[in-house]
Amino acid sequence: MNTYGTLFKVTLYGESHQDAIGVVIDGVMPGLKINWDLVNNDLKLRRPGAVGTTPRVEKDELIVTSGIFNGYATGSPIHVMIKNENVISKDYSHLVKQPRPGHADFVASIKYRGYHDYRGGGRFSGRLTTPLVVAGAIAKQMLPFEFSHKLVQVGNLKDMSKLDEYLREIHEKGESVGGIIELTVKNMTIGIGEPMFEKLESKIGQMLFTIPAVKGVEIGTGFDGVEMYGSEFNDVYEDETGKTLTNHSGGVSGGISNGNNLVVKVFVKPTSSIGKKQESFNFETNKKETFEVGGRHDTAIVRRAGIVLENALAIVLADLYLWSKIY
Amino acid sequence: MNTYGTLFKVTLYGESHQDAIGVVIDGVMPGLKINWDLVNNDLKLRRPGAVGTTPRVEKDELIVTSGIFNGYATGSPIHVMIKNENVISKDYSHLVKQPRPGHADFVASIKYRGYHDYRGGGRFSGRLTTPLVVAGAIAKQMLPFEFSHKLVQVGNLKDMSKLDEYLREIHEKGESVGGIIELTVKNMTIGIGEPMFEKLESKIGQMLFTIPAVKGVEIGTGFDGVEMYGSEFNDVYEDETGKTLTNHSGGVSGGISNGNNLVVKVFVKPTSSIGKKQESFNFETNKKETFEVGGRHDTAIVRRAGIVLENALAIVLADLYLWSKIY
Amino acid sequence: MNTYGTLFKVTLYGESHQDAIGVVIDGVMPGLKINWDLVNNDLKLRRPGAVGTTPRVEKDELIVTSGIFNGYATGSPIHVMIKNENVISKDYSHLVKQPRPGHADFVASIKYRGYHDYRGGGRFSGRLTTPLVVAGAIAKQMLPFEFSHKLVQVGNLKDMSKLDEYLREIHEKGESVGGIIELTVKNMTIGIGEPMFEKLESKIGQMLFTIPAVKGVEIGTGFDGVEMYGSEFNDVYEDETGKTLTNHSGGVSGGISNGNNLVVKVFVKPTSSIGKKQESFNFETNKKETFEVGGRHDTAIVRRAGIVLENALAIVLADLYLWSKIY
Amino acid sequence: MNTYGTLFKVTLYGESHQDAIGVVIDGVMPGLKINWDLVNNDLKLRRPGAVGTTPRVEKDELIVTSGIFNGYATGSPIHVMIKNENVISKDYSHLVKQPRPGHADFVASIKYRGYHDYRGGGRFSGRLTTPLVVAGAIAKQMLPFEFSHKLVQVGNLKDMSKLDEYLREIHEKGESVGGIIELTVKNMTIGIGEPMFEKLESKIGQMLFTIPAVKGVEIGTGFDGVEMYGSEFNDVYEDETGKTLTNHSGGVSGGISNGNNLVVKVFVKPTSSIGKKQESFNFETNKKETFEVGGRHDTAIVRRAGIVLENALAIVLADLYLWSKIY
Repeated sequence: MNTYGTLFKVTLYGESHQDAIGVVIDGVMPGLKINWDLVNNDLKLRRPGAVGTTPRVEKDELIVTSGIFNGYATGSPIHVMIKNENVISKDYSHLVKQPRPGHADFVASIKYRGYHDYRGGGRFSGRLTTPLVVAGAIAKQMLPFEFSHKLVQVGNLKDMSKLDEYLREIHEKGESVGGIIELTVKNMTIGIGEPMFEKLESKIGQMLFTIPAVKGVEIGTGFDGVEMYGSEFNDVYEDETGKTLTNHSGGVSGGISNGNNLVVKVFVKPTSSIGKKQESFNFETNKKETFEVGGRHDTAIVRRAGIVLENALAIVLADLYLWSKIY
Repeated sequence: MNTYGTLFKVTLYGESHQDAIGVVIDGVMPGLKINWDLVNNDLKLRRPGAVGTTPRVEKDELIVTSGIFNGYATGSPIHVMIKNENVISKDYSHLVKQPRPGHADFVASIKYRGYHDYRGGGRFSGRLTTPLVVAGAIAKQMLPFEFSHKLVQVGNLKDMSKLDEYLREIHEKGESVGGIIELTVKNMTIGIGEPMFEKLESKIGQMLFTIPAVKGVEIGTGFDGVEMYGSEFNDVYEDETGKTLTNHSGGVSGGISNGNNLVVKVFVKPTSSIGKKQESFNFETNKKETFEVGGRHDTAIVRRAGIVLENALAIVLADLYLWSKIY
Repeated sequence: MNTYGTLFKVTLYGESHQDAIGVVIDGVMPGLKINWDLVNNDLKLRRPGAVGTTPRVEKDELIVTSGIFNGYATGSPIHVMIKNENVISKDYSHLVKQPRPGHADFVASIKYRGYHDYRGGGRFSGRLTTPLVVAGAIAKQMLPFEFSHKLVQVGNLKDMSKLDEYLREIHEKGESVGGIIELTVKNMTIGIGEPMFEKLESKIGQMLFTIPAVKGVEIGTGFDGVEMYGSEFNDVYEDETGKTLTNHSGGVSGGISNGNNLVVKVFVKPTSSIGKKQESFNFETNKKETFEVGGRHDTAIVRRAGIVLENALAIVLADLYLWSKIY
Repeated sequence: MNTYGTLFKVTLYGESHQDAIGVVIDGVMPGLKINWDLVNNDLKLRRPGAVGTTPRVEKDELIVTSGIFNGYATGSPIHVMIKNENVISKDYSHLVKQPRPGHADFVASIKYRGYHDYRGGGRFSGRLTTPLVVAGAIAKQMLPFEFSHKLVQVGNLKDMSKLDEYLREIHEKGESVGGIIELTVKNMTIGIGEPMFEKLESKIGQMLFTIPAVKGVEIGTGFDGVEMYGSEFNDVYEDETGKTLTNHSGGVSGGISNGNNLVVKVFVKPTSSIGKKQESFNFETNKKETFEVGGRHDTAIVRRAGIVLENALAIVLADLYLWSKIY
């Protein structure tokens, strides 16, 4: 449910329009000096502001209640809470009678028997990725690896220098677009990943698919490798460190890191909420009807997803990294 | 490590060239009458024989030692063992000094400190998917869903009617190819998946990436959706059952099944073992050298992977299906 | 670490002298109307006030940030936070140089490398049982069972009508005492407990030993049964409901509830902090020296432990109860 | 269910009268040279033969199919299977209509809907402790600790030199008795145990209560400490190693090992099966009736339980020991 991990454990709570969201981070190395500036920098990367992102801006002030003493992790769980402040009170009950396409309204109504908090997407809101970013920012501080992310495609745009202009056009059309993000981890050690079911790729797959709107995950070259021959796809070991010139396998062999860069690509679907009119079944009138989503939303949530995915990946690595040290 | 699941739990053991491989299946509904013909049929689908598959054929006779009484599941773990019989004894120790590109030899040497069983790929062998197929075949018998799989692309071939001929050519070149498999589950109920970290897609991602050679997983339209607008990608609810005409989301909304067909696509990389000469670093001579893999292997392991992936998916669904019934 | 449970999951955080303690409760049935009066009543039972209990009284105001909408559980995690307010700031650093006997000071110093928060017992403080009581009070609302607890012995006193007087004497001596608490659960259903490793008794054992000062757990007659013959110990089934006249097995057969009252007895050791002078090794002077604990503490923590144990037991039962409903 | 552990993981399968029982042991350190003589010695200690033990003797030949290469653990799961050979085929169906007092027959019928294998106690049989002994014997080889166990009381007998004679008398009466076993682990390191929910005592409690017939667990002095004052119960640190003269806490402070001997006492109830006539409700005649258990059984199962408990404890320690090394 809402707890991830074996040795580095992250428990999330919160819904979009209730008082607060937060995270309990268990397994942080006692004695780690937490650099909160790094955490806040990551949060800033996630926050809206750029073209194509929602006007709902939260200041994301961190309330750290536990697990830190004199600036160092104590070994007890770290609890970080963030208040939901920029919440616009309005009537969301129409989502129950006419569930939005692409959203979780419909399934949530059934799974939670009508008791879910549907306001602002409730537990399915991208808002919940904020505490995940916090946890990941702390995870990165425990790890000797170097993380980065970049957009490689947004809609049909591959030249990221034109992104603002492109998203302005999309927004004017009342449309949204998705995109592809590439995550890279450098300075990887060899041996991260626990076959069979805690293989590195498996845990990456589990984690990244928890991020709302993620609909595809590939390691290294991924699906594009379908037209390659084995002799092309195989990465040749160059020296005794296991270094390879090509990296089609994305730094993972047999579910275990091989010391080359870990490379993961993620497909984020077009934002479900769009400006345009759409149709959906109306449970009150019992027929399909036109409606407008309204509210504040992103034209391209993918623009903000990079740091979320990067930090989610860091949580996976922190957990498996500790695991790699047990013998 | 080698146990998957919360309520429906699968524990695998075995290495390619030791005495046996097997699986302990926990959480099977007491009173389920196991149809072993269905299990054996699935195993037959996995076994080699077709063009492009390895000549190592095991008869996969199931030794069921526990968990069944009078033909019915007792509620205790079911243990199924399969002997490794068609094992060719030869010297595999060269894999240690010159690890094969694309294989796990190199990382295994380091992670397991040289103590891993490197013969025939050891624990990384595709052979280990046999007990997974068994577990999945039993999982399917607990579920009201309808499973299928199909090849949608092999190498650059998209017309599957020409597969034999195509793979013969690839084999003659001493090459291998990968492919894309599509899994479909019909008659899905609504509400399968436990956000945040046990979302349906998350558990699918975790499980399918455990299968050797899988390097990409996408749900529904997946990466191809990157050029679509939100208004195109959103699946419109047509009626009170949640049915949609399009299914870009692959039957999953917010990490929970929405009642439409569950559709998953998986990229299986080209088989690492090829007939052609390749290069790799030799730890004995301390330089990169040419070598041949030798041994028996598949030209296109993807040809046999469909049933493995289908049944692996069934294990995921069995676990989450039981979970959906707790309230 | 700090998360318990499979389907009903409780994650605790907090240390005695930091800003807050709290709990994330996952798996609460969506639609459960939470009765907060019942929760507060349980907290009142845990709070000091009676003879033999500490003068540190916290008002334990519950801050519920998530998981509740219109008074009902939404199916998302419920987060409850409680501020630490009645904290006396003083220098606790002597605990590092001269660890108190019976406390965790010494092991914590080593395990957490000197970074643990030693003030007021830190994470080992009985204060942490407050959020556990909250979680258990909610668990009880999900269950059709009837819980109770009672003191059966305190020090060498077995007649509880004389408890105040007895504890006053102990306190005057600068001493502390332990005791035995009996927990009873009525209206049990048959079938709670998942052999082999999630047997009812196993999960009770795991949970109750997490409560500070618990040093013994027995089910039914327990250790006193050592002098009984099998014919005396065996509980005879009287009718088709499985009712037995005696209940030496405490309502559990083969690790599964048998429908009779669940009876658990728990030994709580004498409070470690006492008024009297004691000796302990001093790491600064490098010799054993006399010292006084000081601070506020309980003469008989066992007097407040009943509701903690009862509610901890409820958490165990909530988890296994949901489990019993999966088929 | 049937898998225990986080880093050192044990999965059990088997029922008393089916083909085999066994265990999958995951997390054994790669490179550990397994001494099978030690394993077999432990099994010998568990096997009947002494006065007061059952005449069903199994030779317990170990079939090791996986996880070992050249005598060393490979890092893959070790699978050990043991055939059930000395099984007397007879009609056990009377257990369904007239469940034996003290046994799991009645609850199993209900929980497993009549599909459980009731022959010889099925999954509830003490036979299942054989693979647990195997796993524990391997766990001990990974640990730097020194394990031992001893009987401290059997029935009302405290002088173990008279045990044979005493049990002969009990047997002649058609009775059975229980007992108390003390486990001791020497050379403990400091820091084993992961508060809050994986405290050392918690995991010991969970594990030991899985052993059939265990109805009480105490750490150190345990329940006998109820009449002690705090100043008596507190163990005083003597030197910088944390050594204490008394050991009322049984080597555990705050749920973490403190370096002194770990001491655990376990109450094993009188064997449920007795020679004497007993009563129980008969579901066929719908009234309480006299019956005889028959079959082969132990007069004092406690006599054989010591090694089972010792090795079960070793499994707990192996898991937490690896955990203690992650930072």
